[in-house]
Amino acid sequence: MKIIIVGASGTMGSYLSNAFEKEHEVIGIGRRSAIQVDLTSPASIEDMYQKVGAFDALICTAGPTYVGPWKNLTAKEFRNGLEGKMMGQINLVLIGQHYINPKGSFTLITGAVTHEPQKNFANASAANAAVEGFVRAAAIELEKGIRINAVSPTVIENSPHYFPFFPGEIPTTMKQLEYGFRKSVFGANTGQVIRP
Amino acid sequence: MKIIIVGASGTMGSYLSNAFEKEHEVIGIGRRSAIQVDLTSPASIEDMYQKVGAFDALICTAGPTYVGPWKNLTAKEFRNGLEGKMMGQINLVLIGQHYINPKGSFTLITGAVTHEPQKNFANASAANAAVEGFVRAAAIELEKGIRINAVSPTVIENSPHYFPFFPGEIPTTMKQLEYGFRKSVFGANTGQVIRP
Repeated sequence: MKIIIVGASGTMGSYLSNAFEKEHEVIGIGRRSAIQVDLTSPASIEDMYQKVGAFDALICTAGPTYVGPWKNLTAKEFRNGLEGKMMGQINLVLIGQHYINPKGSFTLITGAVTHEPQKNFANASAANAAVEGFVRAAAIELEKGIRINAVSPTVIENSPHYFPFFPGEIPTTMKQLEYGFRKSVFGANTGQVIRP
Repeated sequence: MKIIIVGASGTMGSYLSNAFEKEHEVIGIGRRSAIQVDLTSPASIEDMYQKVGAFDALICTAGPTYVGPWKNLTAKEFRNGLEGKMMGQINLVLIGQHYINPKGSFTLITGAVTHEPQKNFANASAANAAVEGFVRAAAIELEKGIRINAVSPTVIENSPHYFPFFPGEIPTTMKQLEYGFRKSVFGANTGQVIRP
């Protein structure tokens, strides 16, 4: 299977790349990869797909948002999550549907703050929720057996600097995260939000 | 109670204005009102609040989205719901929190397609979901007892031209809709998505 991983140089993306590249052709898209993408630019996303060519699965673990005090959250800061984690991932699907092979899959990243908010993360709550709403809607629209799901971890074990922001949250292990993505990519579900 | 209704000239807003103006001071903001607002412009929203002054509750029933075939849904069409129903409503809160009285409330409009998608409505699914995620997050951030909820009807009985798009959906009556908003504005809940 030819799998694109957008965010391959990040904590989650690099772990998933290592996990999947033993059995699959992984095209990692990240800060240090041969092919780059600017998620905030539909033209850049189109360019990425043209360079990669046909593929079987896209995983996205990238998605900037504004994290910080509510009092500093204005329309301007809100654009971070809106153009990044939300529209970046949505455009990966709207554009990528024309490049993906029949029966292929898109797996996007959201997060527990969609339903369990934490202070400082309102921008992520909105962006994640938008992606999850889109996933449910896209699942009934995509043709040729193309599937779409989201994986929604809580704070992940390899990002301990975030632990203080998530009081009482049991971190998602990297293995759990991997298996969440496995369920989406290699399973048959569509329109689901997978909580690994 | 001084209640702002954004979308006062629409099907839902005009019904709610009639229902609430017997007992409250309703400031209707709509196409034919003295005070106007362009929801896609933070500057216009700020201007509206400056003209209205302090208030106790804001109801929004306005929120454009792209409704149409999936095959025509590109990043461009997606902007309709993103700048309108999503950011328009989010900015009403981010800006309005500086004008609303202590213990005031914001009540935004979403819709059943957030969780029960229908063909042609992917843009609304994403925009609604974003607003619902934001509502949950804002509820734990807003200070001075200010509350926030969303009302999520399915297709409403006074919009029969939409019925064919919602097979099997029992329409939300206008009375149910009114009572959904009553629950938010006059009740004590916050961070809730009310399904009237």
